[in-house]
Amino acid sequence: MKTSNLNASKAPASSLLDLMPGVVNLGIDGFNASITAHGGSVSPIQWQPPGDGDPALAWDLARLMDDPRVEQANQVATQRIIQARPMWEDIALRADSVWSDMKGERLLLHAGPPVAWDDMCGPMHGAMIGAVLYEGWAPTPDKARAMLKRGDIAFAQCHDYQAVGPMTGIISPSMPLICVRNADASSSAKNNMAYTNINEGIGRCLRFGANGPDVIERLKWFEAVLAPVLKAAVRHQFDQTGGIDLKAIQSQALLMGDEVHSRNAASTALFFMALSVPLAGLDFARGTVTQDHVRQTLDFVAKTSQFFLNYSMVSCKAIMDSAHGIEYSTVVTATARNGTQTGLRVSGLGKKWFCATSDLPQGLFFPGFKQEDACPDIGDSAITETAGFGGCSFAASPALTLLAGGSVDDAVRYTQEMYEITVTQNPALSLPALNFRGAPCGLDVRKVVDTGIRPVVTTGIAHKEAGIGQIGAGIVRVPMSCYTQALREAATQFLKD
Amino acid sequence: MKTSNLNASKAPASSLLDLMPGVVNLGIDGFNASITAHGGSVSPIQWQPPGDGDPALAWDLARLMDDPRVEQANQVATQRIIQARPMWEDIALRADSVWSDMKGERLLLHAGPPVAWDDMCGPMHGAMIGAVLYEGWAPTPDKARAMLKRGDIAFAQCHDYQAVGPMTGIISPSMPLICVRNADASSSAKNNMAYTNINEGIGRCLRFGANGPDVIERLKWFEAVLAPVLKAAVRHQFDQTGGIDLKAIQSQALLMGDEVHSRNAASTALFFMALSVPLAGLDFARGTVTQDHVRQTLDFVAKTSQFFLNYSMVSCKAIMDSAHGIEYSTVVTATARNGTQTGLRVSGLGKKWFCATSDLPQGLFFPGFKQEDACPDIGDSAITETAGFGGCSFAASPALTLLAGGSVDDAVRYTQEMYEITVTQNPALSLPALNFRGAPCGLDVRKVVDTGIRPVVTTGIAHKEAGIGQIGAGIVRVPMSCYTQALREAATQFLKD
Repeated sequence: MKTSNLNASKAPASSLLDLMPGVVNLGIDGFNASITAHGGSVSPIQWQPPGDGDPALAWDLARLMDDPRVEQANQVATQRIIQARPMWEDIALRADSVWSDMKGERLLLHAGPPVAWDDMCGPMHGAMIGAVLYEGWAPTPDKARAMLKRGDIAFAQCHDYQAVGPMTGIISPSMPLICVRNADASSSAKNNMAYTNINEGIGRCLRFGANGPDVIERLKWFEAVLAPVLKAAVRHQFDQTGGIDLKAIQSQALLMGDEVHSRNAASTALFFMALSVPLAGLDFARGTVTQDHVRQTLDFVAKTSQFFLNYSMVSCKAIMDSAHGIEYSTVVTATARNGTQTGLRVSGLGKKWFCATSDLPQGLFFPGFKQEDACPDIGDSAITETAGFGGCSFAASPALTLLAGGSVDDAVRYTQEMYEITVTQNPALSLPALNFRGAPCGLDVRKVVDTGIRPVVTTGIAHKEAGIGQIGAGIVRVPMSCYTQALREAATQFLKD
Repeated sequence: MKTSNLNASKAPASSLLDLMPGVVNLGIDGFNASITAHGGSVSPIQWQPPGDGDPALAWDLARLMDDPRVEQANQVATQRIIQARPMWEDIALRADSVWSDMKGERLLLHAGPPVAWDDMCGPMHGAMIGAVLYEGWAPTPDKARAMLKRGDIAFAQCHDYQAVGPMTGIISPSMPLICVRNADASSSAKNNMAYTNINEGIGRCLRFGANGPDVIERLKWFEAVLAPVLKAAVRHQFDQTGGIDLKAIQSQALLMGDEVHSRNAASTALFFMALSVPLAGLDFARGTVTQDHVRQTLDFVAKTSQFFLNYSMVSCKAIMDSAHGIEYSTVVTATARNGTQTGLRVSGLGKKWFCATSDLPQGLFFPGFKQEDACPDIGDSAITETAGFGGCSFAASPALTLLAGGSVDDAVRYTQEMYEITVTQNPALSLPALNFRGAPCGLDVRKVVDTGIRPVVTTGIAHKEAGIGQIGAGIVRVPMSCYTQALREAATQFLKD
């Protein structure tokens, strides 16, 4: 068994006898006090028995760590991640044109693992009510709430529709969708599609649970103006080059201070450039897009520094779905939060979610807000971490510490930790602060349980009440229980012979 | 006198007697061999006597270092740098509309300190010939060369016209000019203007000495298409917000992997966004700019990752001219190279150039080229270093090491060195890799001579023959002799009483 969290103290052996004795203490802190009280020095090493103290889990872990089938499956999974080529190909003007089972149905998709109405957090309630109003299924928020509570509206997970959504992640039938294909040309590629909605900017937004007339109006404007403009741009580009290469934008942005989860300043600017040139070539005399629609759209994107977030997420969804469903693989292919629970999916373990109560993000709060106002971790955006961005690539984004707190050294340290729990490095994603080392690639359930290091997620922080919106940014760790459950399931399924 | 290059070894004193003796050696390396031959360790410290070994210079230096008038003047100069607010206000469609003494005259501006025709490097010859052809003053390159050699064409320095130009830096009467005002609102501000030409992209360009029909054609296209489009955008923006704030773009770009001299990927993208939104609002029915002109322009800018370089330079020129002419100040306000000589101007020392033979840049070369092909350091672009960007902010741009060579640690080290030779830090320019420390601000002639640390310039490398173009990128140091000459002059002028 590996003990990868055990780093020996580096005191030179030859001088040990000349010095005041020092003590290296593994694990329990209580031993330290008596030594320091007598002037001794202690180097505490954080350590706990592998398997979270559970001997059966430790035994399962040992067998899975030594299983060459798992090792090989994880190599296949990470190769798929590395080779994936997410291309933005189209905008679907309505979600129900992509998903026929949504057509004419009262169905809402939401972020994270499944959750019942009564268990939802405030922002999720608010966003669901907003979506019902936006669709015109109810005339008032109270009536919308009653319908939702009664079960008149069906819910499903974005992830079950090859989709992801930030924060509450609500997608309703009328919403335009960003459509991305994994254009990986290798023979084993699935060329799977992935979908998401459009970023609403900051302030009062549906994704944070706001549902006032201004929020609904913006969604209608997406339908009428922004989505047709985006569609015109991407279809023009599709004819030229097969679409807009989202991984190329993500990869460049890592050299430009983004980790493309909580910071998307560079990626949005690069995306804006990719969009503007085809738009400048549109023939306004033909088609329904007007010059003023283009102006409004560019103005909106230029003012929305997180506009690329949804593109980054859907790119990662296209990448990670290509690595899903590989027998014996313990690579995490989705991490998603619904505002109360965080869930994982694992490549070799099918559609099952391994869930636990979400942690509260820690970070910096906008003026007037505090930690107690924070909603537990929420949204599908942690898909970016599973693909090696966000917390895995925090070292790329020192500027994010200005927003999310911590020091630049912390940012580097988070990424260094993530190498301990990933299968390999992604040569397509260079991290400048680490001398262009490839980003951590393929979060491995086994390594998380073995090392006790939980994946770091960079995240926006929503107010726990509906409609107030983003109140800060910070980091959160994925609950360990998600991984121990997944490990037990892997042992059950993979070691049954 | 300061001995700021003396860093004591950090061995703990208590253990010195238990160890094999180590030696700290200052200066001459010859002493080291006999110690290492006997198994001893030497910590060599680079040191040389202040004043470059000249006792008279050392005495001048000591007096200038202790002079409170110089200290105070340098504080004033750096406050001007920090407060400067370079706003892009306009495009002049012809240079001779800005400079009336150019009107109807055969006058070419060039980069760097003055240089006679016979002393010019190959690229400067090539670019001058190109400018003569572009202006229609001669029908063939041979006739243009003969005119130039004969003295039919007058030359002047860009810097004498409140202008800067990259590489050969040629500005001729028909060229469009970028016009920038220092909109610093403080009472002492000069609200000085600064000017530059437009970046031609990579490959065969006038600024590298190319002068074929393709080069001339591009310059004509600038006149007819690109410049009017840029003008339409900036005039629209001027009416809204007083122009486009170039220092804001530079400052953001430092958080995004640019040092805005040799790397301008983020700044060009941010600039592109600032440009596109007003362009999308143009009324094509009125005015001479067509939609296709806008499309061509945006396509050109999006493909030219160094497009912002000229904007960065002219921004720095506007900043540094505001700090020029302060009595007793030893702050460098211009560093410029003409391809053979590098020259400095110093705030308190008027228009005089302090010149020395340029060094050869060291770095990485494009395939097929090598160090022997390199032209000596050339261009006005080192104005960016005087304003705290480029080599001073190399720590902001780990990605530049991919182009210019060296490691990320080297990049950080260069910036750390620059703090040793600057007056203060610029709080408006944060360097993420140094925990958001302000960039080095105000290169001080005294500190350069005192420490022996020469300013680092990040630079493109031109082929030494005309017309081949850029062959690599790297770094170069400004010759020490420029600073010792300036110091002597400062002593003569400031200490005459």
